[in-house]
Amino acid sequence: MLAERAFPADELRAFASPRSAGSRVPWSGGELTVAAVTDDALRGADIVFFAAGARTSREHAPGVADAGGIAVDKSSAYRMEPAVPLVVPEVNAAALESHRGIVANPNCVAIPLTIALAPLHDAFGLRHVTVATYQAASGAGRALVDELDEQERHSVAGDAVEARVYPHVLHRNVVPGGWPMHGDDTEEEVKVAAETRRVLGLPELPIAVTTVRVPVAVGHSMAVWCELETAADAVSARAALRQAPGVAVVDEPDEQRYPTPRDVAGTDAVHVGRVRVDRSREHGLAMFVVADNLRKGAATNAVQVAELLIS
Amino acid sequence: MLAERAFPADELRAFASPRSAGSRVPWSGGELTVAAVTDDALRGADIVFFAAGARTSREHAPGVADAGGIAVDKSSAYRMEPAVPLVVPEVNAAALESHRGIVANPNCVAIPLTIALAPLHDAFGLRHVTVATYQAASGAGRALVDELDEQERHSVAGDAVEARVYPHVLHRNVVPGGWPMHGDDTEEEVKVAAETRRVLGLPELPIAVTTVRVPVAVGHSMAVWCELETAADAVSARAALRQAPGVAVVDEPDEQRYPTPRDVAGTDAVHVGRVRVDRSREHGLAMFVVADNLRKGAATNAVQVAELLIS
Repeated sequence: MLAERAFPADELRAFASPRSAGSRVPWSGGELTVAAVTDDALRGADIVFFAAGARTSREHAPGVADAGGIAVDKSSAYRMEPAVPLVVPEVNAAALESHRGIVANPNCVAIPLTIALAPLHDAFGLRHVTVATYQAASGAGRALVDELDEQERHSVAGDAVEARVYPHVLHRNVVPGGWPMHGDDTEEEVKVAAETRRVLGLPELPIAVTTVRVPVAVGHSMAVWCELETAADAVSARAALRQAPGVAVVDEPDEQRYPTPRDVAGTDAVHVGRVRVDRSREHGLAMFVVADNLRKGAATNAVQVAELLIS
Repeated sequence: MLAERAFPADELRAFASPRSAGSRVPWSGGELTVAAVTDDALRGADIVFFAAGARTSREHAPGVADAGGIAVDKSSAYRMEPAVPLVVPEVNAAALESHRGIVANPNCVAIPLTIALAPLHDAFGLRHVTVATYQAASGAGRALVDELDEQERHSVAGDAVEARVYPHVLHRNVVPGGWPMHGDDTEEEVKVAAETRRVLGLPELPIAVTTVRVPVAVGHSMAVWCELETAADAVSARAALRQAPGVAVVDEPDEQRYPTPRDVAGTDAVHVGRVRVDRSREHGLAMFVVADNLRKGAATNAVQVAELLIS
């Protein structure tokens, strides 16, 4: 994403755990050698992207901030810290101004959800949101994508299909779990609701979320219902979405045109379709939202945050 | 299903369109020869199962009723006719008594949905229902299952993956369409809401539905949220579901135990898990429901209706 967006770095360095130190990654026609991450090694950097787990961020992001740099964190470590801004540039870029050396990025469902909800809130006011997700294997990491590939090969060959890295076989399945639990909710459900409220600046917004993994490689989808303050018909809702930054409306269901993860993977826009009035609730609106979880749900958002910091 | 349940038929005959006449189907250790369907050919039958399209049912079911037989119809032809009972035996068997020679079966989403909702309505009262579906390829017919198989083979072989019978590639995808449209809603969404209201005997119940096809062969799943008249915690909701006919509660998410279509395919129970309080709404409850769309969503329900008629 840094290369694709021609990120204006004078110098780029790559860090990882000691286990990966010495490996090489392609950059700018050549290669970078990966170094082991330490606070000392990160000193002097203007911006450090953290795309490892929450523990790594907690260990090294404060050192970056103390040394005068800025940590742009994709982990969940700081997302709910009041002193750390949680930023989706299309939605709450202004929150960046208050940073003290660490900026958090929301999770890969909350980013596209807030991008689709923000223009509806601005135009009609949000009173309640319900979300069912259809989340791709890559959201759980490369190992699950590899496992899905393997399961598919075994299935086609007529061999037994097994689950090893995930608690259930994902091939030809739909799995309403696999995340750590937080009481009766998945941690993912708790994160999506809490982070969406924070990015939208609506700490009291009621949000119901059910998170489900589906056998898709890349592209998180979600069925969304909103209860609005004022009535919106499908035409005015689509108009509000169309003028919103980062949104692409694909919505001619009579022509079988609506977003699907196969079509959306590889793009940066949050795609919205099946926009329609939900007559079951007062001022109800339903829509289907799809985004590339690796790009806009992760890398693109982080690089956009860094671009804003530079500008 | 007739063989598996040892259906008490003195004689069984098979009918189809003239195109399929002469083909053979296995039955009771031997074979039945398929005859072309006509009103005359159906005369004298006590019970006729209709498992073709709505047009076939409209053409021949009235003749069965006029001749003193009973048409048990799996098509959508008569589902919303006030004079025809729409029956899920576990939910509204009493409606059968009013039949005049035709009995309708709900669609493959409405059947499991009503079985899961009825005990919650009885115990706590339903005020509002929201449903997002994860529907298997077999719901669209054998051709889409074959197409999914083929897409998987081509993908594993590194060949191009194409859609022919469905408007989008289903392999590694999630498709919020493919059904005929009824305004901005899919016809499936309209059917699920209308049939669920009718079976539950709650003509005013507000129901929001989004129907989505997923790359699963057999087993329809749904994320469901209910707003209840009186509060239910997860324990009391599970208890109400556990004592309900046709329901299997699988709900230990900490142990990664919840229903998935891979586990549920081949069974007749409606499996319910991820039961939890939905704090976003007053008296809110969320759950995940999975059933075999070919068995309980279709054949099993029709055979159960016929068994009730006989008893």
